[in-house]
Amino acid sequence: MKKIVFSTLFAAMLPQLAEAAPKNIIYMIGDGMGPAYLSAYRYYQDNPATKAVESTIYDELWVGVASTYPDDDTIVTDSAAGATALATRIKSYNGAISVNHQHQPLTTMLEIAKAKGMHTGIVATSQINHATPASFMAHNEHRKNYNEIANDFVDSKVAGKFVADLMFGGGTKYFIRDDRNLVAEFKQAGFSYADNWQDLTKLSKLPALALLAPVGLPSSLDNSVANPLQTMTEKALQLLTPSEKGFVLMVEGSQIDWCGHANDIACAMAEMDDFAKAIRVAKAYVDSHPDTMLVITADHETGGLSLGSDGVYAWNTAVIKGVKHTAPQISRLLLESSANEVPKLWATLTGIQLTTAEFAELTLALQQAKKVLGAKLPADLEDLPKTQEQALDTLSAAVKKQINHYSKTGWTSGAHTAIDVPVLAWGKQRVDFAGFQDNTDIAAKLIGFIEAK
Amino acid sequence: MKKIVFSTLFAAMLPQLAEAAPKNIIYMIGDGMGPAYLSAYRYYQDNPATKAVESTIYDELWVGVASTYPDDDTIVTDSAAGATALATRIKSYNGAISVNHQHQPLTTMLEIAKAKGMHTGIVATSQINHATPASFMAHNEHRKNYNEIANDFVDSKVAGKFVADLMFGGGTKYFIRDDRNLVAEFKQAGFSYADNWQDLTKLSKLPALALLAPVGLPSSLDNSVANPLQTMTEKALQLLTPSEKGFVLMVEGSQIDWCGHANDIACAMAEMDDFAKAIRVAKAYVDSHPDTMLVITADHETGGLSLGSDGVYAWNTAVIKGVKHTAPQISRLLLESSANEVPKLWATLTGIQLTTAEFAELTLALQQAKKVLGAKLPADLEDLPKTQEQALDTLSAAVKKQINHYSKTGWTSGAHTAIDVPVLAWGKQRVDFAGFQDNTDIAAKLIGFIEAK
Repeated sequence: MKKIVFSTLFAAMLPQLAEAAPKNIIYMIGDGMGPAYLSAYRYYQDNPATKAVESTIYDELWVGVASTYPDDDTIVTDSAAGATALATRIKSYNGAISVNHQHQPLTTMLEIAKAKGMHTGIVATSQINHATPASFMAHNEHRKNYNEIANDFVDSKVAGKFVADLMFGGGTKYFIRDDRNLVAEFKQAGFSYADNWQDLTKLSKLPALALLAPVGLPSSLDNSVANPLQTMTEKALQLLTPSEKGFVLMVEGSQIDWCGHANDIACAMAEMDDFAKAIRVAKAYVDSHPDTMLVITADHETGGLSLGSDGVYAWNTAVIKGVKHTAPQISRLLLESSANEVPKLWATLTGIQLTTAEFAELTLALQQAKKVLGAKLPADLEDLPKTQEQALDTLSAAVKKQINHYSKTGWTSGAHTAIDVPVLAWGKQRVDFAGFQDNTDIAAKLIGFIEAK
Repeated sequence: MKKIVFSTLFAAMLPQLAEAAPKNIIYMIGDGMGPAYLSAYRYYQDNPATKAVESTIYDELWVGVASTYPDDDTIVTDSAAGATALATRIKSYNGAISVNHQHQPLTTMLEIAKAKGMHTGIVATSQINHATPASFMAHNEHRKNYNEIANDFVDSKVAGKFVADLMFGGGTKYFIRDDRNLVAEFKQAGFSYADNWQDLTKLSKLPALALLAPVGLPSSLDNSVANPLQTMTEKALQLLTPSEKGFVLMVEGSQIDWCGHANDIACAMAEMDDFAKAIRVAKAYVDSHPDTMLVITADHETGGLSLGSDGVYAWNTAVIKGVKHTAPQISRLLLESSANEVPKLWATLTGIQLTTAEFAELTLALQQAKKVLGAKLPADLEDLPKTQEQALDTLSAAVKKQINHYSKTGWTSGAHTAIDVPVLAWGKQRVDFAGFQDNTDIAAKLIGFIEAK
């Protein structure tokens, strides 16, 4: 039995470069961001007027790869087991929120940092009690126990203190409930609170809480607020900077994964763009605060994304760039238009010129969906009745079929896959994260920095 | 317009580690070996009796990634443009064998090495005039001009010398023809020649030619010769070692790509295993000859492989390990058995327990194939008439459908994809290949070593 050992490829060469532990850690997780997402984003954002392909912030920082398998026989991890490994340096079962197989809590990086007197924060575009941020904050036998996990954000303490001094994301549905108002409890304990983007800008000190949506934030591609993750990351770093003993900030690009589950490439590229901008903010922070270490990875790959399908030697980014909304939002707009407006609206929303047969197929899907959903959808699609949800999904699938077909984007699953994920790093200790490693190794190295304090 | 610049991530940190150019270069290309193939091989070869997942030789050497796009608008490269970039440091169009858009020759790494008085070699499991080795040896406007390319192996000279001193692989069909016997010409020019594995072991000096199959070698999973690429690599290094001015050896794991095109995961894992063993030989050579640099990459990804499909959170390696042959060989064995033997034979060949409906589907495919192909197939399936080839493909597809379904292996294409490929390196200059780079950067760095002589 041989444990995967972190590659000493570079470390062995570089004893002279050993650096003291950094004061601050920025830990960014692109949920579902497998390696194909990085390749895809490079070609997606490329300027077609120039011959060479411009490199991205991801390319600039790429140093290694990590395996992601959970502690069961599946090889394919879910976001809970993935985040548990990344937060605690210990693998557990799929569904686990920082607990082991016996449901005993596994101490998280944020709890260790808090015990050292550091400041701590989480930023996500999902609800903040979703699997990834939850695994840094709470302990629960199953990720779906959203209310219990939200309660844990208030109830779980390290030496009498809250685990996080800063929490930005979505989730009022779970934090302001009939049975318990956790926002009120945080406020009473001294937290500043924002529930809209304007108030977020006004937050001026820790502790601070911002819940900017009932559940997850709107998908980047549909969001009227530009670059939400970048905005939250900037504000978080501003508030954490005065921390005397340093800080640990976890920033999640949560919805890359959601777009992956939906096999929606335009949706995924918009999330990758916001995540890239948030990474630029973090990298600039490291450049101006060289006692800060930035590490970026993913918990797993989602969807089995690939750039090429149907036996064709091409990936057509022009198609993806022409898609203006996520498939559910395109579906909504088509449903809410009259039949004679559909051809022009489809062209405006996607730029894709369908064949007569393809357009007939789409029209049929639209008519069938309209029978179930009517001509006006509720503002919030979260709580649609099951039959309506299925009708919307079927229409969205018809929309994505054309986008994937014309762009030659391939997917193998609506779930996750076991392909290794990229590891990116910036800061004096970046060589420590080079080469192949396991996801638990990343956490062990970061926790090692914190414990060295 | 901004050219992709090789990441200076490590180089900038490490001026003190600059090393003189290596004497020898071993350049290994896993054709089609995208990043998922490395993840897949790790889980495939893992000992299930131990809890941790054992790392592989690929993991040990992994230092970077490379983009592979060709010099046209497709983003997805073919093997010819990919190998041209890797052999000449210049991108060209899909189909190009080391020529530019105007069909002018682009000088290859082997030609540059030969001009420097080095010894040169190519080893492949395809025919040696297939796209990848051809791009190191020859110049042609299209990869499919196999006879012209083979002629070029003899006719193309560098200062009166053959481009390669050593060529091991398949290809008698192209090198011994009615119109021209290139093997006889090589012999007359002083080459030792082997056309079987026993004679290969007897080769004792350069120049040397071994053509071990009419076209490509048999697929590893079906081959009675164990580890053909490892064996050829060992012999090649033995013959090249005395080279006073050093050598450049290109070794291709050619058929990883062919298994990828076929979407045949058991086939791909067997090729990855032979390639891994060849890499171990090369790494050991570097360890005992520290003036040698080993670089390993892929020309592109094939098939859009992913480890997970059908929305299931699992990848089942036990299924893949139980598959004894490639799908065409399983098809042949099923076709050549009597109907009552099929259930037991299927179980022996795949270990997969089919449902009654699945077995009925397979049986139907078998009966339909038998109508076209009869009960006895020719030894060589290369030149089947079109209808017979299609019937065999259809049966093979029915076989692979079950293997992919039960193992949860996903594929998005029968062609290539644009995902970045892994870069592995061993030797004193390995840091030069770390981080993100373009495929032309790899060639530029290696050619830089040669030109520094």
